[in-house]
Amino acid sequence: MTAITQRALTDEEMLCVENTIRRTVTSNVGLISKACEHVVAAGGKRIRPRLLLLAYKAVGGEDITPVVPMAATVELLHTASLIHDDINDHSDTRRGQASVNALLGNSLALLIGDFIFIKLLGLMAGFGPRAIHVLADACRDIIEGETLQMLSLGDTGMTEETYLKIVTQKTASLFSASTKLGALIGGGTEEQILALAEYGLNLGIAFQIRDDTLDLAGDPEKLGKPVGSDLEEGKFGLAVLYGLQALECMENALQQKDVRQIQCLLEEVHAVDYADQRAAEYVGLAGRALARLPASAAKSALYDLADSVVHRDK
Amino acid sequence: MTAITQRALTDEEMLCVENTIRRTVTSNVGLISKACEHVVAAGGKRIRPRLLLLAYKAVGGEDITPVVPMAATVELLHTASLIHDDINDHSDTRRGQASVNALLGNSLALLIGDFIFIKLLGLMAGFGPRAIHVLADACRDIIEGETLQMLSLGDTGMTEETYLKIVTQKTASLFSASTKLGALIGGGTEEQILALAEYGLNLGIAFQIRDDTLDLAGDPEKLGKPVGSDLEEGKFGLAVLYGLQALECMENALQQKDVRQIQCLLEEVHAVDYADQRAAEYVGLAGRALARLPASAAKSALYDLADSVVHRDK
Repeated sequence: MTAITQRALTDEEMLCVENTIRRTVTSNVGLISKACEHVVAAGGKRIRPRLLLLAYKAVGGEDITPVVPMAATVELLHTASLIHDDINDHSDTRRGQASVNALLGNSLALLIGDFIFIKLLGLMAGFGPRAIHVLADACRDIIEGETLQMLSLGDTGMTEETYLKIVTQKTASLFSASTKLGALIGGGTEEQILALAEYGLNLGIAFQIRDDTLDLAGDPEKLGKPVGSDLEEGKFGLAVLYGLQALECMENALQQKDVRQIQCLLEEVHAVDYADQRAAEYVGLAGRALARLPASAAKSALYDLADSVVHRDK
Repeated sequence: MTAITQRALTDEEMLCVENTIRRTVTSNVGLISKACEHVVAAGGKRIRPRLLLLAYKAVGGEDITPVVPMAATVELLHTASLIHDDINDHSDTRRGQASVNALLGNSLALLIGDFIFIKLLGLMAGFGPRAIHVLADACRDIIEGETLQMLSLGDTGMTEETYLKIVTQKTASLFSASTKLGALIGGGTEEQILALAEYGLNLGIAFQIRDDTLDLAGDPEKLGKPVGSDLEEGKFGLAVLYGLQALECMENALQQKDVRQIQCLLEEVHAVDYADQRAAEYVGLAGRALARLPASAAKSALYDLADSVVHRDK
């Protein structure tokens, strides 16, 4: 965490969330507990619970105790969807560790993902219907987004509009739900809830655009996965879609899955710069939404977090 | 429905549940809607929502409107788990129709199952924390039971105790949750809630014992799936476990997956009779739990339903 975030959100508070996450996914079946432990211990940025807690504080929430189960929920929802994604993508690594499917095979990985999904029910039982509906809508969006993505794998004719729709559903929706839930549970006004939902949505789009760019231009050691793995699967990010518009030979390079050549072509037309710029625009929109909130350490941390999204290298 | 059940639960009431089920699993993504429609239209016995509604009425609940979303929830939870089961079991047919994995492949089937799981969140949002916790516990049991079953596939040394533990978790737990939820939402006393939970649990065990027996001795046309498919996968029911105790040559026959020979051997030692008798014992326990409730048409229908479980041929 940067110094700004740390002023708004202490290590102890994040540890609270971490402990709830770990407690939630224990099971009487040893293998399930072990697999969940493996996934949770691999870490991750915990960006969704961080967003939720900061939104909670940005509307005046103080003691985080009542909101911790929801912070754990959004992280575990993300975790469960990653486990199922890895099965479908045949990914062997996740966060620099063996994926659950690589460790235990697809059948058990499917059940481990299901287990984490369903454990969320207990975590959210204490919240009101409105909060549960926000989460339910985000869940639906994730699965619909994943499905749309699967249906357009390898589609070199995909428009930027379709790309943004998929990104909004599969990623930005849960970012938005996280900040919205924080604001809602923190007792924010309707205007504040809306502003934070908007912040989360735009930040989520920026985050995924950057994520897709890192797959092309990132450092595999820092990412914990090989470069170009999205290309292998036929998942095209904004830079690739831009390249397809700019260069006729791009389609051929994509079909041949020649990562090195694709990288060269994209460099030629500054496609990564284009994607970075688009991500920066969404971060700008996130910032504008945030401006509608009163000043606070949490608000500063949310600005900071938004900036870090476009500059992150993992 | 038999005449007794029909007096307690009308076709119109079941249609209400059916409509809620169908409405719940629609999606803006056409493929998801179509796949869900396919699964829901294939039917099934709808035994879980039936149990829930009857329990609701058995404790004095009248207008079923407030409980319909929960009745749809228990059925859809079962449906989602079947879709994921079929992936793991490589099953091509379900209820006499092509399974989702056979239709769309494993990756999309995984997402369709996830979609149905997560749509339950919205359905249950209006219920209180206690009801949600009952459901959450049942969900956990189902996944843990499925996992235990997967870990003991082909284990010819499995004890009857382990078998019953798996059956209790993967099947009886949701039966029990269904009757418990009906009683809880219907405003039953703690004693009535307990009695109906006990009824559901014992009935669920009987149901699964019979289900496993039908795989060996049932009519494939009525079942909508080939005989012996559990044996193929190394899933052993109570009759097979009994056969393993009684006959030394049983283990060899199981390893060779010779369905015809296995059936002959089980007949020799009356293994199916043994399993049927054990199922009848659990139905007896279910009836004893039910006896603690006041007389009503719903109570009679629950007795009737319990009897039909041991005599069903599909």
